[in-house]
Amino acid sequence: MDFDLTPTEMPSSGNCPFCYGNESKTPPEILALRDGTPPNTPGWSVRVVPNKYPALMIEGELGRKGVGLYDRMRGIGAHEVIIESPDHHLNLCDMPSAQLEQILLVYQERLRDLMRDPRFKYVLLFKNHGEKAGASLAHPHTQLIATPVTPREVAMELETSKNHHQLKERCLICDLIFQEIESGERIVSIGESYVSYAPFASRFPFEIFFAPRAHCHSYADIPRHEIAGVARGLKDTLQRLKKVLRDPPYNFVLHTSPNVHTFPKRSHYWDTLPFDYHWHIEILPRLTRVAGFEWGTGFYINPTAPEEAALFLREAEPD
Amino acid sequence: MDFDLTPTEMPSSGNCPFCYGNESKTPPEILALRDGTPPNTPGWSVRVVPNKYPALMIEGELGRKGVGLYDRMRGIGAHEVIIESPDHHLNLCDMPSAQLEQILLVYQERLRDLMRDPRFKYVLLFKNHGEKAGASLAHPHTQLIATPVTPREVAMELETSKNHHQLKERCLICDLIFQEIESGERIVSIGESYVSYAPFASRFPFEIFFAPRAHCHSYADIPRHEIAGVARGLKDTLQRLKKVLRDPPYNFVLHTSPNVHTFPKRSHYWDTLPFDYHWHIEILPRLTRVAGFEWGTGFYINPTAPEEAALFLREAEPD
Repeated sequence: MDFDLTPTEMPSSGNCPFCYGNESKTPPEILALRDGTPPNTPGWSVRVVPNKYPALMIEGELGRKGVGLYDRMRGIGAHEVIIESPDHHLNLCDMPSAQLEQILLVYQERLRDLMRDPRFKYVLLFKNHGEKAGASLAHPHTQLIATPVTPREVAMELETSKNHHQLKERCLICDLIFQEIESGERIVSIGESYVSYAPFASRFPFEIFFAPRAHCHSYADIPRHEIAGVARGLKDTLQRLKKVLRDPPYNFVLHTSPNVHTFPKRSHYWDTLPFDYHWHIEILPRLTRVAGFEWGTGFYINPTAPEEAALFLREAEPD
Repeated sequence: MDFDLTPTEMPSSGNCPFCYGNESKTPPEILALRDGTPPNTPGWSVRVVPNKYPALMIEGELGRKGVGLYDRMRGIGAHEVIIESPDHHLNLCDMPSAQLEQILLVYQERLRDLMRDPRFKYVLLFKNHGEKAGASLAHPHTQLIATPVTPREVAMELETSKNHHQLKERCLICDLIFQEIESGERIVSIGESYVSYAPFASRFPFEIFFAPRAHCHSYADIPRHEIAGVARGLKDTLQRLKKVLRDPPYNFVLHTSPNVHTFPKRSHYWDTLPFDYHWHIEILPRLTRVAGFEWGTGFYINPTAPEEAALFLREAEPD
């Protein structure tokens, strides 16, 4: 009862550009898993299209320049939408594991493809689920934005990981996962190939950290045989969240290694990067408001202890 | 028409604990500007009380300790509310300049007092205006939270300021202000003792940076004779925002020097700190939603160019 869990009505499916049969309402597809049908027609299970209202434009040079003290470059990048299913009403966590596996493989394929473009330092993959989490369409989808700079949040994680690695010769996130499994009090769900837990001193109520147990710096490099296990883990974790909080609005964000080959060989990332990062997904339910304190500090007031959130999530029964 | 500016109804004044005559509904006051009346009775113009639901507790030791890889300390700090006026319906920007001056002096007095406590590294002063900006009471008020650690956002600004100062022997924010005044295209309002402008590459539509023109690292150290000019400038700036966006929800956050004397003399802040920071207020209208992209990157997609926002704000006519 601590949170307002009233579901927000999202526009219904009548005119949805992501629906089966409405393929002509999106820009031409980049990739689709199909049963032999031609592009931009029905017959697909997962479909990737350019965002119709892109935040960044794919064509052009970066044009970096200084403007006095400031730095300027053109808004170059890629902005794509991964339509997760032809079914407008199917929640990602309610899809069969095999469908999730297909989606995760499509994520990987898009990441690999975009990282071939030397203009892109990073590919951010994220999901806005529910109107309060910023979704403008209810149809299940993920977005992807390739950026010509390493995002600030990722750069800070890389720096911390690098420092830890230099000191310990171990991966920071491997160490965190080991400590969480040992203690057990913040674990949400665990399988052979993944673990999810409520992070220590979480920023948000019911925040979840989802990671592969085996060290792997880049999502683009997950071995094929591990994808099925990751898919089952993500489904299990998201289902628990849905059960406990009645399908809350949430954002999830994939954190993965930047496009290492775009860094100059002398950059301080080059030496250690392939060894000291560990891809993961941060799941952020949107239950509380961010206000002056959070904007001013970068600290978060969280009314729900992660140990308590984890207990609720652990005890939930996924389908 | 780019933003939903429907005003949100806030609870009315009937039972408001900040209203004139309801002094017994708050914890006992810490400070009040009064006409000789006794504490916790009517007769005040500005009143400071502890927050009834504090985020941090004032009594106790920090109890810093490590928990494996993590760091833990008790939630020690101060959380106060500055009630800006006895009038429930008066917007900060519509108060007479003399009232704003009194409020700014009260801010200063509370900062100075709390910085005498060596447990507090920083005092964050912020305002949540309107429900969408996280306000739970409509009565005009500001909040203040003293923290035992330097906030992450402030630490990053200090680091950048220090690097700039080491390179140039000038204050970064003095340099920014000089460049903004020279160019003029992002200026919102300017007076003898203050300037406000839409920051280059603003994070949010109609974001405003408000600062004193004279270098001054800490809000606690503004000379008495400059407070009146700062009050007039803040009133003018906030009035423009109200006129252009029909009283939008916003957060403002005071950025000021940390409590320098709590840092060890060998800390890398000690050498330069008193010289290289410059207090300012960041005003953040809450017109857009923060979603997956923002959480994942620390970057912001802003549909309104600051140059355009500044033009609107500059052309508005404050009362």
